[in-house]
Amino acid sequence: MKAYGKIDWAFAAGRIPFLTHGREPEMTSHDKIAVLNLSGEEAVLEICIFYEDEAPKVYEVKLRPRRLKKIRFNDLIDPEAIRMERNFSCFVKSNVPVVIQYSRMNTGSGTNAEMTTMGYPVDE
Amino acid sequence: MKAYGKIDWAFAAGRIPFLTHGREPEMTSHDKIAVLNLSGEEAVLEICIFYEDEAPKVYEVKLRPRRLKKIRFNDLIDPEAIRMERNFSCFVKSNVPVVIQYSRMNTGSGTNAEMTTMGYPVDE
Amino acid sequence: MKAYGKIDWAFAAGRIPFLTHGREPEMTSHDKIAVLNLSGEEAVLEICIFYEDEAPKVYEVKLRPRRLKKIRFNDLIDPEAIRMERNFSCFVKSNVPVVIQYSRMNTGSGTNAEMTTMGYPVDE
Amino acid sequence: MKAYGKIDWAFAAGRIPFLTHGREPEMTSHDKIAVLNLSGEEAVLEICIFYEDEAPKVYEVKLRPRRLKKIRFNDLIDPEAIRMERNFSCFVKSNVPVVIQYSRMNTGSGTNAEMTTMGYPVDE
Repeated sequence: MKAYGKIDWAFAAGRIPFLTHGREPEMTSHDKIAVLNLSGEEAVLEICIFYEDEAPKVYEVKLRPRRLKKIRFNDLIDPEAIRMERNFSCFVKSNVPVVIQYSRMNTGSGTNAEMTTMGYPVDE
Repeated sequence: MKAYGKIDWAFAAGRIPFLTHGREPEMTSHDKIAVLNLSGEEAVLEICIFYEDEAPKVYEVKLRPRRLKKIRFNDLIDPEAIRMERNFSCFVKSNVPVVIQYSRMNTGSGTNAEMTTMGYPVDE
Repeated sequence: MKAYGKIDWAFAAGRIPFLTHGREPEMTSHDKIAVLNLSGEEAVLEICIFYEDEAPKVYEVKLRPRRLKKIRFNDLIDPEAIRMERNFSCFVKSNVPVVIQYSRMNTGSGTNAEMTTMGYPVDE
Repeated sequence: MKAYGKIDWAFAAGRIPFLTHGREPEMTSHDKIAVLNLSGEEAVLEICIFYEDEAPKVYEVKLRPRRLKKIRFNDLIDPEAIRMERNFSCFVKSNVPVVIQYSRMNTGSGTNAEMTTMGYPVDE
Protein backbone atom coordinates (compact mmCIF):
# COMPACT_ATOMS: atom_id res chain seq x y z
CA MET A 1 0.00 0.00 0.00
CA LYS A 2 1.12 3.53 -0.87
CA ALA A 3 2.14 5.54 2.22
CA TYR A 4 -0.93 7.81 2.44
CA GLY A 5 -1.03 10.85 4.70
CA LYS A 6 1.27 13.70 5.66
CA ILE A 7 4.41 13.95 7.77
CA ASP A 8 3.70 17.20 9.66
CA TRP A 9 0.49 17.81 11.61
CA ALA A 10 -0.63 20.47 14.07
CA PHE A 11 -3.57 21.34 16.25
CA ALA A 12 -3.89 24.23 18.64
CA ALA A 13 -6.60 23.76 21.31
CA GLY A 14 -5.15 21.20 23.74
CA ARG A 15 -6.13 21.11 27.41
CA ILE A 16 -6.34 18.10 29.75
CA PRO A 17 -9.51 18.41 31.87
CA PHE A 18 -8.96 18.18 35.64
CA LEU A 19 -12.50 17.27 36.67
CA THR A 20 -13.77 13.76 35.90
CA HIS A 21 -16.82 11.65 36.74
CA GLY A 22 -18.15 8.20 35.96
CA ARG A 23 -17.00 4.71 35.15
CA GLU A 24 -13.30 4.19 34.33
CA PRO A 25 -11.84 4.00 31.77
CA GLU A 26 -14.79 4.71 29.42
CA MET A 27 -15.75 7.98 31.09
CA THR A 28 -12.41 9.30 32.32
CA SER A 29 -11.72 12.88 31.11
CA HIS A 30 -8.83 13.04 28.66
CA ASP A 31 -7.27 14.86 25.71
CA LYS A 32 -5.66 12.75 22.99
CA ILE A 33 -4.52 12.22 19.44
CA ALA A 34 -5.16 9.09 17.37
CA VAL A 35 -2.40 8.40 14.85
CA LEU A 36 -2.87 6.03 11.90
CA ASN A 37 0.26 4.69 10.21
CA LEU A 38 -0.85 3.41 6.79
CA SER A 39 2.74 2.87 5.66
CA GLY A 40 4.75 -0.35 5.74
CA GLU A 41 7.40 1.12 8.05
CA GLU A 42 7.63 1.98 11.71
CA ALA A 43 6.67 5.62 12.30
CA VAL A 44 8.83 7.66 14.65
CA LEU A 45 6.88 10.69 15.88
CA GLU A 46 8.45 13.79 17.33
CA ILE A 47 5.62 15.41 19.32
CA CYS A 48 6.34 19.03 20.14
CA ILE A 49 4.13 20.61 22.84
CA PHE A 50 3.82 24.41 22.78
CA TYR A 51 2.69 26.61 25.68
CA GLU A 52 1.50 30.17 26.19
CA ASP A 53 4.35 31.15 28.46
CA GLU A 54 7.18 28.62 28.20
CA ALA A 55 9.50 27.05 25.61
CA PRO A 56 8.17 23.99 23.73
CA LYS A 57 9.01 20.45 24.92
CA VAL A 58 9.65 17.46 22.65
CA TYR A 59 8.45 13.86 23.18
CA GLU A 60 9.13 10.80 21.04
CA VAL A 61 6.56 8.08 20.31
CA LYS A 62 6.88 5.07 17.98
CA LEU A 63 4.13 3.39 16.00
CA ARG A 64 4.14 0.07 14.19
CA PRO A 65 3.49 -0.21 10.42
CA ARG A 66 -0.19 -0.53 9.41
CA ARG A 67 -1.33 0.08 12.96
CA LEU A 68 -2.81 2.96 14.94
CA LYS A 69 -1.89 4.41 18.30
CA LYS A 70 -4.03 6.56 20.57
CA ILE A 71 -1.84 8.86 22.63
CA ARG A 72 -3.37 10.44 25.74
CA PHE A 73 -1.46 13.58 26.56
CA ASN A 74 -1.28 12.73 30.24
CA ASP A 75 0.83 9.70 29.23
CA LEU A 76 3.60 11.99 27.90
CA ILE A 77 5.85 12.28 30.94
CA ASP A 78 9.44 12.41 29.65
CA PRO A 79 10.95 15.10 29.71
CA GLU A 80 8.01 16.34 31.87
CA ALA A 81 4.26 15.82 32.40
CA ILE A 82 1.76 18.27 30.89
CA ARG A 83 -0.12 19.88 33.75
CA MET A 84 -3.91 19.53 33.77
CA GLU A 85 -6.01 22.57 32.79
CA ARG A 86 -3.01 24.15 31.08
CA ASN A 87 -3.47 25.33 27.48
CA PHE A 88 -1.16 23.72 24.95
CA SER A 89 -0.77 23.19 21.21
CA CYS A 90 0.79 20.25 19.45
CA PHE A 91 3.00 19.89 16.39
CA VAL A 92 3.86 16.38 15.21
CA LYS A 93 6.67 15.50 12.81
CA SER A 94 6.78 11.94 11.49
CA ASN A 95 9.39 10.13 9.40
CA VAL A 96 6.63 8.52 7.29
CA PRO A 97 3.19 9.83 6.25
CA VAL A 98 0.47 9.39 8.91
CA VAL A 99 -3.08 10.63 9.58
CA ILE A 100 -3.79 12.36 12.91
CA GLN A 101 -7.13 13.11 14.58
CA TYR A 102 -7.51 15.06 17.82
CA SER A 103 -10.28 14.45 20.37
CA ARG A 104 -11.30 15.19 23.95
CA MET A 105 -13.65 13.64 26.46
CA ASN A 106 -14.63 15.87 29.35
CA THR A 107 -16.87 14.41 32.07
CA GLY A 108 -16.19 17.27 34.44
CA SER A 109 -19.79 18.30 34.94
CA GLY A 110 -21.09 14.78 35.52
CA THR A 111 -21.92 13.64 31.99
CA ASN A 112 -19.63 13.20 29.02
CA ALA A 113 -18.90 15.91 26.46
CA GLU A 114 -16.84 14.89 23.42
CA MET A 115 -15.27 16.82 20.59
CA THR A 116 -13.01 15.91 17.69
CA THR A 117 -11.33 17.31 14.60
CA MET A 118 -8.85 16.12 12.04
CA GLY A 119 -5.47 17.72 12.67
CA TYR A 120 -4.14 20.30 10.23
CA PRO A 121 -1.54 18.86 7.81
CA VAL A 122 0.99 21.71 7.93
CA ASP A 123 3.19 20.32 5.18
CA GLU A 124 0.51 20.74 2.53
CA MET B 1 -23.04 16.68 -12.36
CA LYS B 2 -19.25 16.49 -12.12
CA ALA B 3 -18.09 13.72 -9.76
CA TYR B 4 -17.04 15.89 -6.82
CA GLY B 5 -15.02 14.55 -3.91
CA LYS B 6 -12.05 12.25 -3.39
CA ILE B 7 -11.54 8.50 -3.70
CA ASP B 8 -9.39 7.85 -0.59
CA TRP B 9 -10.39 8.98 2.90
CA ALA B 10 -9.09 8.24 6.37
CA PHE B 11 -9.86 9.01 9.97
CA ALA B 12 -8.09 7.72 13.03
CA ALA B 13 -10.14 7.97 16.25
CA GLY B 14 -12.77 5.23 15.95
CA ARG B 15 -14.28 3.51 18.99
CA ILE B 16 -17.79 2.07 19.42
CA PRO B 17 -19.11 3.04 22.88
CA PHE B 18 -20.31 0.13 25.03
CA LEU B 19 -22.52 2.05 27.44
CA THR B 20 -25.82 3.45 26.16
CA HIS B 21 -28.90 5.13 27.64
CA GLY B 22 -32.18 6.55 26.41
CA ARG B 23 -34.73 6.19 23.68
CA GLU B 24 -33.86 3.96 20.71
CA PRO B 25 -32.80 4.56 18.03
CA GLU B 26 -32.30 8.35 18.46
CA MET B 27 -30.15 8.02 21.59
CA THR B 28 -28.33 4.72 21.00
CA SER B 29 -24.54 5.07 21.30
CA HIS B 30 -22.77 4.55 17.97
CA ASP B 31 -19.75 5.37 15.84
CA LYS B 32 -20.33 5.93 12.12
CA ILE B 33 -19.38 7.43 8.78
CA ALA B 34 -21.74 9.21 6.42
CA VAL B 35 -20.76 8.80 2.77
CA LEU B 36 -22.13 11.05 0.02
CA ASN B 37 -21.89 9.81 -3.56
CA LEU B 38 -22.32 12.88 -5.78
CA SER B 39 -21.40 10.93 -8.90
CA GLY B 40 -23.73 9.32 -11.42
CA GLU B 41 -22.31 5.84 -10.79
CA GLU B 42 -22.60 3.25 -8.05
CA ALA B 43 -19.79 3.66 -5.51
CA VAL B 44 -18.03 0.52 -4.32
CA LEU B 45 -16.25 1.22 -1.03
CA GLU B 46 -13.44 -0.85 0.35
CA ILE B 47 -13.43 -0.03 4.09
CA CYS B 48 -10.20 -1.03 5.77
CA ILE B 49 -10.27 -1.15 9.59
CA PHE B 50 -6.92 -0.78 11.37
CA TYR B 51 -6.16 -1.83 14.95
CA GLU B 52 -3.46 -1.21 17.54
CA ASP B 53 -2.43 -4.82 17.82
CA GLU B 54 -3.78 -6.82 14.89
CA ALA B 55 -3.71 -6.87 11.08
CA PRO B 56 -6.27 -4.69 9.26
CA LYS B 57 -9.60 -6.16 8.07
CA VAL B 58 -11.40 -5.20 4.84
CA TYR B 59 -15.17 -4.74 4.37
CA GLU B 60 -17.08 -3.88 1.19
CA VAL B 61 -20.07 -1.52 1.06
CA LYS B 62 -21.98 -0.27 -2.01
CA LEU B 63 -23.69 3.05 -2.45
CA ARG B 64 -26.14 4.18 -5.14
CA PRO B 65 -25.43 7.15 -7.42
CA ARG B 66 -26.49 10.58 -6.08
CA ARG B 67 -27.39 9.09 -2.72
CA LEU B 68 -25.84 8.92 0.74
CA LYS B 69 -25.29 6.07 3.11
CA LYS B 70 -24.68 6.19 6.86
CA ILE B 71 -22.59 3.24 7.94
CA ARG B 72 -22.58 2.34 11.63
CA PHE B 73 -19.42 0.44 12.42
CA ASN B 74 -21.29 -2.16 14.44
CA ASP B 75 -23.07 -3.12 11.21
CA LEU B 76 -19.77 -4.27 9.65
CA ILE B 77 -19.79 -7.97 10.52
CA ASP B 78 -18.20 -9.77 7.56
CA PRO B 79 -15.33 -10.89 7.86
CA GLU B 80 -15.76 -10.11 11.61
CA ALA B 81 -17.50 -7.66 13.96
CA ILE B 82 -15.57 -4.73 15.47
CA ARG B 83 -15.57 -5.22 19.24
CA MET B 84 -17.00 -2.40 21.32
CA GLU B 85 -14.60 -0.11 23.22
CA ARG B 86 -11.75 -1.19 20.96
CA ASN B 87 -9.70 1.56 19.28
CA PHE B 88 -9.68 1.48 15.49
CA SER B 89 -8.89 3.67 12.50
CA CYS B 90 -10.55 3.59 9.10
CA PHE B 91 -9.27 3.96 5.55
CA VAL B 92 -11.81 4.03 2.74
CA LYS B 93 -11.00 3.51 -0.93
CA SER B 94 -13.79 4.23 -3.43
CA ASN B 95 -14.00 3.62 -7.18
CA VAL B 96 -15.64 7.06 -7.66
CA PRO B 97 -15.16 10.34 -5.79
CA VAL B 98 -17.18 10.61 -2.55
CA VAL B 99 -17.31 12.84 0.54
CA ILE B 100 -17.01 11.20 3.98
CA GLN B 101 -17.85 12.62 7.41
CA TYR B 102 -17.19 10.78 10.68
CA SER B 103 -19.36 11.15 13.79
CA ARG B 104 -20.11 9.55 17.15
CA MET B 105 -22.99 9.62 19.59
CA ASN B 106 -22.15 8.47 23.11
CA THR B 107 -24.98 8.32 25.66
CA GLY B 108 -22.92 6.29 28.10
CA SER B 109 -23.22 8.69 31.02
CA GLY B 110 -26.97 9.19 30.68
CA THR B 111 -27.17 12.13 28.26
CA ASN B 112 -25.95 12.37 24.68
CA ALA B 113 -22.50 13.59 23.67
CA GLU B 114 -21.87 14.04 19.94
CA MET B 115 -18.77 14.79 17.92
CA THR B 116 -18.03 15.00 14.21
CA THR B 117 -15.31 15.83 11.71
CA MET B 118 -14.85 15.63 7.98
CA GLY B 119 -12.59 12.73 7.11
CA TYR B 120 -9.11 13.40 5.78
CA PRO B 121 -8.88 13.04 1.96
CA VAL B 122 -5.60 11.12 1.77
CA ASP B 123 -5.32 11.26 -2.01
CA GLU B 124 -4.91 15.01 -2.04
CA MET C 1 -11.03 42.48 -0.04
CA LYS C 2 -10.17 39.46 -2.19
CA ALA C 3 -13.05 36.97 -2.44
CA TYR C 4 -11.66 34.28 -0.12
CA GLY C 5 -13.17 30.82 0.08
CA LYS C 6 -14.52 28.19 -2.30
CA ILE C 7 -17.65 27.95 -4.43
CA ASP C 8 -18.57 24.27 -3.86
CA TRP C 9 -18.93 22.72 -0.40
CA ALA C 10 -20.28 19.43 0.89
CA PHE C 11 -20.94 17.63 4.13
CA ALA C 12 -22.52 14.25 4.62
CA ALA C 13 -23.89 13.66 8.13
CA GLY C 14 -27.06 15.78 8.30
CA ARG C 15 -30.01 14.85 10.53
CA ILE C 16 -32.49 17.16 12.28
CA PRO C 17 -33.07 15.87 15.84
CA PHE C 18 -36.72 15.30 16.77
CA LEU C 19 -36.40 15.38 20.54
CA THR C 20 -35.72 18.74 22.22
CA HIS C 21 -35.58 20.11 25.77
CA GLY C 22 -34.89 23.39 27.48
CA ARG C 23 -35.15 27.12 26.96
CA GLU C 24 -35.97 28.38 23.46
CA PRO C 25 -34.29 29.38 21.26
CA GLU C 26 -30.87 28.80 22.91
CA MET C 27 -31.49 25.11 23.63
CA THR C 28 -33.73 24.06 20.72
CA SER C 29 -32.37 21.03 18.84
CA HIS C 30 -31.29 21.90 15.30
CA ASP C 31 -28.98 21.08 12.41
CA LYS C 32 -27.50 23.98 10.46
CA ILE C 33 -24.83 25.51 8.27
CA ALA C 34 -23.20 28.89 8.81
CA VAL C 35 -22.14 30.57 5.57
CA LEU C 36 -19.66 33.45 5.47
CA ASN C 37 -19.61 35.63 2.36
CA LEU C 38 -16.27 37.48 2.42
CA SER C 39 -16.79 38.82 -1.10
CA GLY C 40 -18.16 42.20 -2.13
CA GLU C 41 -21.08 40.66 -4.03
CA GLU C 42 -24.34 39.01 -3.11
CA ALA C 43 -23.93 35.22 -2.86
CA VAL C 44 -26.60 33.05 -4.44
CA LEU C 45 -26.46 29.56 -2.94
CA GLU C 46 -27.92 26.49 -4.55
CA ILE C 47 -28.33 24.03 -1.65
CA CYS C 48 -28.80 20.48 -2.84
CA ILE C 49 -30.10 17.99 -0.24
CA PHE C 50 -29.33 14.31 -0.86
CA TYR C 51 -31.15 11.34 0.69
CA GLU C 52 -30.59 7.62 1.12
CA ASP C 53 -33.63 6.59 -0.86
CA GLU C 54 -34.94 9.51 -2.92
CA ALA C 55 -33.77 11.97 -5.58
CA PRO C 56 -32.02 15.15 -4.37
CA LYS C 57 -33.96 18.40 -3.85
CA VAL C 58 -32.63 21.91 -4.56
CA TYR C 59 -33.19 25.06 -2.45
CA GLU C 60 -31.99 28.61 -3.13
CA VAL C 61 -30.73 30.98 -0.44
CA LYS C 62 -29.19 34.46 -0.86
CA LEU C 63 -26.58 36.12 1.28
CA ARG C 64 -25.47 39.76 1.38
CA PRO C 65 -21.86 40.78 0.67
CA ARG C 66 -19.50 40.76 3.70
CA ARG C 67 -22.16 39.17 5.88
CA LEU C 68 -22.91 35.71 7.25
CA LYS C 69 -26.07 33.67 7.31
CA LYS C 70 -26.92 30.74 9.55
CA ILE C 71 -29.30 28.39 7.79
CA ARG C 72 -31.25 25.92 9.94
CA PHE C 73 -32.27 23.01 7.77
CA ASN C 74 -35.80 23.00 9.15
CA ASP C 75 -36.20 26.46 7.59
CA LEU C 76 -35.77 24.99 4.08
CA ILE C 77 -39.39 24.35 3.10
CA ASP C 78 -39.63 25.09 -0.65
CA PRO C 79 -39.89 22.73 -2.62
CA GLU C 80 -40.46 20.60 0.54
CA ALA C 81 -39.50 20.39 4.21
CA ILE C 82 -36.75 17.99 5.36
CA ARG C 83 -38.34 15.48 7.72
CA MET C 84 -36.88 15.22 11.20
CA GLU C 85 -34.68 12.20 12.05
CA ARG C 86 -34.11 11.55 8.35
CA ASN C 87 -30.49 11.19 7.19
CA PHE C 88 -29.38 13.69 4.56
CA SER C 89 -26.25 15.13 2.98
CA CYS C 90 -25.75 18.62 1.61
CA PHE C 91 -23.95 20.01 -1.41
CA VAL C 92 -23.76 23.79 -1.79
CA LYS C 93 -22.87 25.62 -4.99
CA SER C 94 -22.27 29.37 -4.74
CA ASN C 95 -21.73 32.00 -7.44
CA VAL C 96 -18.96 33.61 -5.33
CA PRO C 97 -16.43 32.06 -2.92
CA VAL C 98 -17.79 31.45 0.60
CA VAL C 99 -16.77 29.55 3.75
CA ILE C 100 -19.23 26.99 5.21
CA GLN C 101 -19.26 25.38 8.65
CA TYR C 102 -21.74 22.68 9.72
CA SER C 103 -23.01 22.24 13.27
CA ARG C 104 -25.72 20.54 15.33
CA MET C 105 -27.27 21.10 18.72
CA ASN C 106 -29.15 18.11 20.13
CA THR C 107 -30.92 18.54 23.47
CA GLY C 108 -32.90 15.35 23.05
CA SER C 109 -31.72 13.67 26.24
CA GLY C 110 -32.28 16.72 28.45
CA THR C 111 -28.94 18.52 28.19
CA ASN C 112 -27.24 19.99 25.13
CA ALA C 113 -24.81 18.11 22.92
CA GLU C 114 -23.05 20.11 20.19
CA MET C 115 -20.83 19.15 17.31
CA THR C 116 -19.27 21.06 14.43
CA THR C 117 -16.95 20.69 11.46
CA MET C 118 -15.82 22.82 8.57
CA GLY C 119 -17.49 21.65 5.37
CA TYR C 120 -15.45 19.95 2.69
CA PRO C 121 -14.54 22.29 -0.20
CA VAL C 122 -15.23 19.93 -3.11
CA ASP C 123 -13.84 22.23 -5.79
CA GLU C 124 -10.29 22.02 -4.45
CA MET D 1 12.03 25.79 12.34
CA LYS D 2 10.23 26.51 9.08
CA ALA D 3 7.21 28.78 9.55
CA TYR D 4 4.47 26.16 9.14
CA GLY D 5 0.83 27.09 8.70
CA LYS D 6 -1.20 29.62 6.76
CA ILE D 7 -1.70 33.39 7.04
CA ASP D 8 -5.47 33.62 6.39
CA TRP D 9 -8.04 31.57 8.31
CA ALA D 10 -11.82 31.67 8.57
CA PHE D 11 -14.64 29.98 10.40
CA ALA D 12 -18.32 30.77 10.21
CA ALA D 13 -20.34 29.45 13.18
CA GLY D 14 -19.44 31.76 16.07
CA ARG D 15 -21.84 32.46 18.95
CA ILE D 16 -21.04 33.21 22.60
CA PRO D 17 -23.47 31.26 24.82
CA PHE D 18 -25.37 33.39 27.37
CA LEU D 19 -26.37 30.63 29.79
CA THR D 20 -23.65 29.07 31.97
CA HIS D 21 -23.49 26.63 34.89
CA GLY D 22 -20.85 25.03 37.07
CA ARG D 23 -17.40 25.64 38.47
CA GLU D 24 -15.42 28.60 37.11
CA PRO D 25 -13.34 28.82 35.03
CA GLU D 26 -13.35 25.16 33.89
CA MET D 27 -17.08 25.07 33.16
CA THR D 28 -17.79 28.65 32.06
CA SER D 29 -19.54 28.84 28.66
CA HIS D 30 -17.33 30.39 25.99
CA ASP D 31 -16.49 30.57 22.29
CA LYS D 32 -12.82 30.81 21.33
CA ILE D 33 -9.97 30.30 18.90
CA ALA D 34 -6.61 28.78 19.77
CA VAL D 35 -3.77 30.17 17.64
CA LEU D 36 -0.39 28.44 17.36
CA ASN D 37 2.56 30.50 16.13
CA LEU D 38 5.20 28.00 15.00
CA SER D 39 7.35 30.74 13.48
CA GLY D 40 10.31 32.52 15.03
CA GLU D 41 8.63 35.93 14.81
CA GLU D 42 5.89 37.73 16.66
CA ALA D 43 2.52 37.19 14.96
CA VAL D 44 0.26 40.19 14.53
CA LEU D 45 -3.33 39.03 13.97
CA GLU D 46 -6.04 41.13 12.41
CA ILE D 47 -9.27 39.47 13.58
CA CYS D 48 -12.26 40.54 11.51
CA ILE D 49 -15.71 39.74 13.00
CA PHE D 50 -18.61 39.50 10.53
CA TYR D 51 -22.31 39.78 11.39
CA GLU D 52 -25.63 39.00 9.76
CA ASP D 53 -26.85 42.57 9.78
CA GLU D 54 -23.97 44.95 10.39
CA ALA D 55 -20.58 45.91 8.95
CA PRO D 56 -17.55 43.84 10.10
CA LYS D 57 -15.36 45.02 12.99
CA VAL D 58 -11.58 44.57 13.23
CA TYR D 59 -9.54 43.65 16.36
CA GLU D 60 -5.78 43.28 16.72
CA VAL D 61 -4.10 40.59 18.81
CA LYS D 62 -0.36 39.81 19.13
CA LEU D 63 1.25 36.45 19.74
CA ARG D 64 4.83 35.61 20.71
CA PRO D 65 7.05 33.40 18.52
CA ARG D 66 6.81 29.64 19.18
CA ARG D 67 3.90 30.16 21.56
CA LEU D 68 0.13 29.74 21.46
CA LYS D 69 -2.68 32.01 22.50
CA LYS D 70 -6.28 31.10 23.29
CA ILE D 71 -8.56 34.02 22.47
CA ARG D 72 -12.04 34.00 24.03
CA PHE D 73 -14.31 36.15 21.90
CA ASN D 74 -15.79 37.88 24.93
CA ASP D 75 -12.29 39.28 25.58
CA LEU D 76 -12.40 41.25 22.31
CA ILE D 77 -13.74 44.61 23.49
CA ASP D 78 -11.99 47.28 21.41
CA PRO D 79 -13.60 48.73 19.21
CA GLU D 80 -16.68 47.03 20.76
CA ALA D 81 -17.72 43.87 22.62
CA ILE D 82 -19.42 41.00 20.75
CA ARG D 83 -22.89 40.58 22.22
CA MET D 84 -23.77 37.17 23.63
CA GLU D 85 -26.10 34.90 21.61
CA ARG D 86 -25.37 36.90 18.46
CA ASN D 87 -24.25 34.97 15.38
CA PHE D 88 -20.86 35.94 14.00
CA SER D 89 -18.13 34.67 11.69
CA CYS D 90 -14.41 35.26 11.96
CA PHE D 91 -11.68 35.95 9.43
CA VAL D 92 -8.09 36.13 10.68
CA LYS D 93 -5.18 37.61 8.75
CA SER D 94 -1.70 37.08 10.17
CA ASN D 95 1.68 38.50 9.15
CA VAL D 96 3.31 35.07 9.64
CA PRO D 97 1.91 31.55 9.13
CA VAL D 98 -0.13 30.22 12.06
CA VAL D 99 -2.52 27.33 12.79
CA ILE D 100 -6.01 28.15 14.14
CA GLN D 101 -8.55 25.87 15.82
CA TYR D 102 -12.05 26.96 16.85
CA SER D 103 -13.93 25.55 19.85
CA ARG D 104 -16.90 26.18 22.12
CA MET D 105 -17.93 25.10 25.58
CA ASN D 106 -21.62 25.52 26.38
CA THR D 107 -22.80 24.65 29.90
CA GLY D 108 -26.14 26.34 29.39
CA SER D 109 -28.29 23.31 30.15
CA GLY D 110 -26.40 22.30 33.31
CA THR D 111 -23.69 20.03 31.93
CA ASN D 112 -20.91 20.81 29.47
CA ALA D 113 -21.20 20.42 25.70
CA GLU D 114 -18.02 20.94 23.67
CA MET D 115 -17.32 21.18 19.97
CA THR D 116 -14.25 21.96 17.90
CA THR D 117 -12.96 22.16 14.35
CA MET D 118 -9.81 23.29 12.62
CA GLY D 119 -10.38 26.64 10.94
CA TYR D 120 -10.47 26.85 7.16
CA PRO D 121 -7.18 28.13 5.65
CA VAL D 122 -8.64 30.53 3.07
CA ASP D 123 -5.31 31.33 1.42
CA GLU D 124 -4.85 27.78 0.16
